[in-house]
Amino acid sequence: MAKKFGIFFTLFCILSTSCLGDWNILSQHKTNSGLKISLKNYCESWRMNVELHNIRDYVVVPQECVAYIGKYMTSTQYKVDSERTINECILYLSTNCILENDGKDAWIFDIDDTLLSSVPYYKKNGFGGNKLNVTSLEDWMSQGKGTAVEHSLKLFNHLKGLGVKIFLVSSRREHLRSATVDNLVKVDFYGWNSLILRDQEDECKNAQTFKAEIRSKLISQGYRIVGIIGDQWSSIEGLPSAKRSFKLPNPMYYVA
Amino acid sequence: MAKKFGIFFTLFCILSTSCLGDWNILSQHKTNSGLKISLKNYCESWRMNVELHNIRDYVVVPQECVAYIGKYMTSTQYKVDSERTINECILYLSTNCILENDGKDAWIFDIDDTLLSSVPYYKKNGFGGNKLNVTSLEDWMSQGKGTAVEHSLKLFNHLKGLGVKIFLVSSRREHLRSATVDNLVKVDFYGWNSLILRDQEDECKNAQTFKAEIRSKLISQGYRIVGIIGDQWSSIEGLPSAKRSFKLPNPMYYVA
Repeated sequence: MAKKFGIFFTLFCILSTSCLGDWNILSQHKTNSGLKISLKNYCESWRMNVELHNIRDYVVVPQECVAYIGKYMTSTQYKVDSERTINECILYLSTNCILENDGKDAWIFDIDDTLLSSVPYYKKNGFGGNKLNVTSLEDWMSQGKGTAVEHSLKLFNHLKGLGVKIFLVSSRREHLRSATVDNLVKVDFYGWNSLILRDQEDECKNAQTFKAEIRSKLISQGYRIVGIIGDQWSSIEGLPSAKRSFKLPNPMYYVA
Repeated sequence: MAKKFGIFFTLFCILSTSCLGDWNILSQHKTNSGLKISLKNYCESWRMNVELHNIRDYVVVPQECVAYIGKYMTSTQYKVDSERTINECILYLSTNCILENDGKDAWIFDIDDTLLSSVPYYKKNGFGGNKLNVTSLEDWMSQGKGTAVEHSLKLFNHLKGLGVKIFLVSSRREHLRSATVDNLVKVDFYGWNSLILRDQEDECKNAQTFKAEIRSKLISQGYRIVGIIGDQWSSIEGLPSAKRSFKLPNPMYYVA
């Protein structure tokens, strides 16, 4: 696989005449410190540091890693990584004293790449290597073709079975409400308590602020947010926080 | 490599008669959902979910992943991952308006597996697969044989050059002070502002509480904590927080 990336990388560099980031001395394949590495090493370290939240606010996946990220997002590894996250949520829910069962236990889900996969969209749009085109993405969303992030359905149904109130909190805009509901139901997500999208007054807020405000409102309504699961750090960070938060892998894009 | 892990895993399972965690149906090599995976897939998803902070409070690395974790911790990949984290810190420090240059800019470092590598110790002690033996680990620490986490020295010296005050905050106990100083200096870490270890009154606190209290004290002394770097989430999480935090990879052990 390293060889394949090497070939891709060489071709890319010949065609583009320059390479981005740390990877700018083609002939050496070395990091700043002189460490000899493969393109796979480089892209894997990029992905790991994205997931560790050390790399933030990136606009596009580095060009030289687009093939690697595409491969990861369509791999068994991505499925296993996500399934493990879901299983850890279920394990957490089995801990004593997490739930009070008084109708005020709440769980928050992101939508994109948490419940509905946008991999089919990004597959046709450069796997995060192209700058986000909101019109094109919203057009795709309005068609309601998102597939289920399959293991998430297990958690969703598990929470329903436990009687936990489910809140879907997404940066999708209000005009996508009907398409979003249709899409969710089509792939078997139904029975949530509330679907909260961004309306006009939220448009100037970043996602983290918007989502933290929603948590604040839920708490003021008496809910205890026992957990959040999302694919972006902005769904999880900021105050007030949930009792526990779970981050699904997603190196394709960054939402602040 | 997958094959090698497969052989190891098969041998392990034959010898131990049972396998732990999700990996308990030897003949199938399937996850709960029926996904067919290799041992490498499984251990990689374990490691990724540790770094995402979805898996917490583990006492030992799962037995079936000890060889995989040992391989990672001694690999080029671990070095590249860590170097990338360090480079992201340096990039962050180059951002406008991060430093005020009034003698109150502060940076916090963990010690173990942030400045001093304990890989030489864990190499001889099961790479996180054995339950922590504090006496044995402290005995090793008292010998001052820790090697430098090499890329961290670059950040350390960069911060010195910028005039940022450096604080070393570690869960190591006070009786290791002299050995720790000797070890740090031997591998070229010197010129810090303060080395803060746990004294007797801190022994009953968990690391996160202890470290958050130290941050609180520094802030009350007028310092602005512009950054923290550590290999444990407990060095970073909790309030008050630093302006930014960076997490180095370390799947060998978990400190709460």
